[in-house]
Amino acid sequence: MNKPPFTAQFNLGDRVAMAVSYDGSAFHGWQSQRKPQVATVQEALEQALSKIADAPVIVQCAGRTDAGVHASHQIVHFDSPAERGEKAWVSGGNTHLPANIAIHWAKPVPESFHARFSATARRYRYVILNSPARSALLSGGVTWENRPLDEQAMHRAGQLLLGELDFTSYRAVACQSRTPMRNVHFIEVSRSGDRVMIDIQANAFLHHMVRNIAGVLIDIGAGIKPVQWAEEVLLAKDRSAAAVTAPPFGLYLVGVTYPDHFQLPHSGPGPWFLSP
Amino acid sequence: MNKPPFTAQFNLGDRVAMAVSYDGSAFHGWQSQRKPQVATVQEALEQALSKIADAPVIVQCAGRTDAGVHASHQIVHFDSPAERGEKAWVSGGNTHLPANIAIHWAKPVPESFHARFSATARRYRYVILNSPARSALLSGGVTWENRPLDEQAMHRAGQLLLGELDFTSYRAVACQSRTPMRNVHFIEVSRSGDRVMIDIQANAFLHHMVRNIAGVLIDIGAGIKPVQWAEEVLLAKDRSAAAVTAPPFGLYLVGVTYPDHFQLPHSGPGPWFLSP
Repeated sequence: MNKPPFTAQFNLGDRVAMAVSYDGSAFHGWQSQRKPQVATVQEALEQALSKIADAPVIVQCAGRTDAGVHASHQIVHFDSPAERGEKAWVSGGNTHLPANIAIHWAKPVPESFHARFSATARRYRYVILNSPARSALLSGGVTWENRPLDEQAMHRAGQLLLGELDFTSYRAVACQSRTPMRNVHFIEVSRSGDRVMIDIQANAFLHHMVRNIAGVLIDIGAGIKPVQWAEEVLLAKDRSAAAVTAPPFGLYLVGVTYPDHFQLPHSGPGPWFLSP
Repeated sequence: MNKPPFTAQFNLGDRVAMAVSYDGSAFHGWQSQRKPQVATVQEALEQALSKIADAPVIVQCAGRTDAGVHASHQIVHFDSPAERGEKAWVSGGNTHLPANIAIHWAKPVPESFHARFSATARRYRYVILNSPARSALLSGGVTWENRPLDEQAMHRAGQLLLGELDFTSYRAVACQSRTPMRNVHFIEVSRSGDRVMIDIQANAFLHHMVRNIAGVLIDIGAGIKPVQWAEEVLLAKDRSAAAVTAPPFGLYLVGVTYPDHFQLPHSGPGPWFLSP
């Protein structure tokens, strides 16, 4: 219940790290598209911060989420174009943001910090509503699956995708990464009532990688493919081996890990509907 | 995980009761306003059911929710203008509805049933996010209050409003009910982490009555008014005694009670984020 103590002061040129959350339902993803009719999270955030700074602010993020994907803990950085206090960036920024984006904290970081390149791990949660009826109350916030899912089979399948592997079969054809290698630290699949959750952490993710893994795990959970299929798809090194991409609605970026010396707050537990 | 068994068949003129849920964020309330630019839940539902019936359908509801107010368990009835099965009304209706409205079941009821006039009790839940920072991920689904709330004081204040009482001070000035008397069955205020929830049941509610009670309880919880103020406002029989109306965002119609002989399914537990 304590209000965050706003102590930091940022001078011209100081680098600022910031945690933000957003409901991605109304946005065409994170990345600015420089088209006035296409709303993106980056543009909304840059507009709000530019008003605080009275000068243009350009932000870099840890994970460029797709259209419809949410974040409870996205990390960004920018170089302050003005002298402002932490409270101006956080509370002031929030007053200029729409209700579906919020800033949680702002911290000073050295110039060596980069929200994307300094990150050593990203964690996502994929939330599936596994029920006969779809939810009107969480329509943009969960992926609805009416086939009964075997979450234990999904969990076993996930264990076949751990470690430093070639994820060619799990990346979008349009993915621009130079390498298909990614190191998946863990995949945990659990159930809480009619919610099935896939928690996945990797050093970084390829384009659509979480949604493609979720698509394969869901087909395995529904029993139309065996557990082993997750590995068969991997070994094929061919995207057409599993042309299933789960929808964006249930996907949340929930945490980003940086080296300890940057002393950034760890990701919190997130809102209650992301808890077990 | 069981699919509902669709067994009922409705003939021309048969009365149908139906449970629906909706995210009210995008609607100007329940009631049809007969203006093309104003979206209401009633019109969306009537349009979907009329497509299934291939004839106009007019629905009556248990509780006419305001703009921005949600329902996990609204009950409606209509007289079937065509011969259709339960599956056509439920699954077919859902395919014609937007993602923020869902039909849960349809049951045959006698002509003596009326969704509004047969109801003996309505239950609402008001969900408050009590935290220093607002939530981007549930912006339309909770009411944000950053003053620390004493939920036990709120609960004690609620106990002063139970029974058959004159709720003139808690009704909107525009309320069209002929009587200000309502019988409040219970008011339970509880906390789960940073969520404070007000559960309230009455035989029926006046216009804005839940939101006006929530507004008074929130001011008491924040410590700017004593517990006894809830009763002082009541006894004043004057709306200007407490001109605080809590916002619609956190309000959910979660259940409607009918006499047992209608044999309607009881309201379910609702989605997980409405659970304790």
